[in-house]
Amino acid sequence: MTDFALHPRLAADSLAVTDLALCRVLLMNDSRFPWLVLVPRLAGAREIVDLPRADRLLLAEETDLAARSLRTLCPTDKLNIGAIGNIVEQLHVHIVARQRTDPAWPGVVWGFGSATPYSGAEAETRIAGLKGLLIQP
Amino acid sequence: MTDFALHPRLAADSLAVTDLALCRVLLMNDSRFPWLVLVPRLAGAREIVDLPRADRLLLAEETDLAARSLRTLCPTDKLNIGAIGNIVEQLHVHIVARQRTDPAWPGVVWGFGSATPYSGAEAETRIAGLKGLLIQP
Repeated sequence: MTDFALHPRLAADSLAVTDLALCRVLLMNDSRFPWLVLVPRLAGAREIVDLPRADRLLLAEETDLAARSLRTLCPTDKLNIGAIGNIVEQLHVHIVARQRTDPAWPGVVWGFGSATPYSGAEAETRIAGLKGLLIQP
Repeated sequence: MTDFALHPRLAADSLAVTDLALCRVLLMNDSRFPWLVLVPRLAGAREIVDLPRADRLLLAEETDLAARSLRTLCPTDKLNIGAIGNIVEQLHVHIVARQRTDPAWPGVVWGFGSATPYSGAEAETRIAGLKGLLIQP
């Protein structure tokens, strides 16, 4: 994994939360939606179907952990989970805690308006909460 | 699984392809995009994180099989895979073979315009091709 580098677009749009066994966990810097992005630290990875099976299953487990953690921390009517990558090719998985009252509901968040960055204190609180939940067995 | 019934909205928007061990495989009746939907045949299922672990892992394997099959059959620049469910609550996973030349690129297909149904012959050909690839080990 020595060649892994986070895509600059993902780095610019997010705040680092923690590293799991496979994935870097990012909090999208958009206070409109509780929104995590998981990035496997595998240089050149682009499609889930092209991962070695062990990495693919570990990504599924880490997606599960991250989704449950986000739902524990934030009011959630529906989890939205997606691997898209049409704009940023580096493999990444979105996990969004949606509420019926959020501005994009019932549409998807991707491509919806412009991000509203967190204040420093808001970000710190959310990241600390996530770190306390994102514990691998 | 005796209580499972496909949501009427999914039934209306799609054509049946086959049943895998866990999921019903549907072809969205929209010739703009090669687009499968996997629906676990589990009554009341809504979120992947609430599935029993064995079902969650089987869903991951069937998603992998379906995504590889779709990419084998259709020219694909990027796979888009998503579990959203803001409108239809019944758990379902979208798998879309995207091309840089498709009408929604680089945006997502969800909520994009109106479906263009397949002709009968087009649908038959695509479904037959998918059936030949969707073989579980």
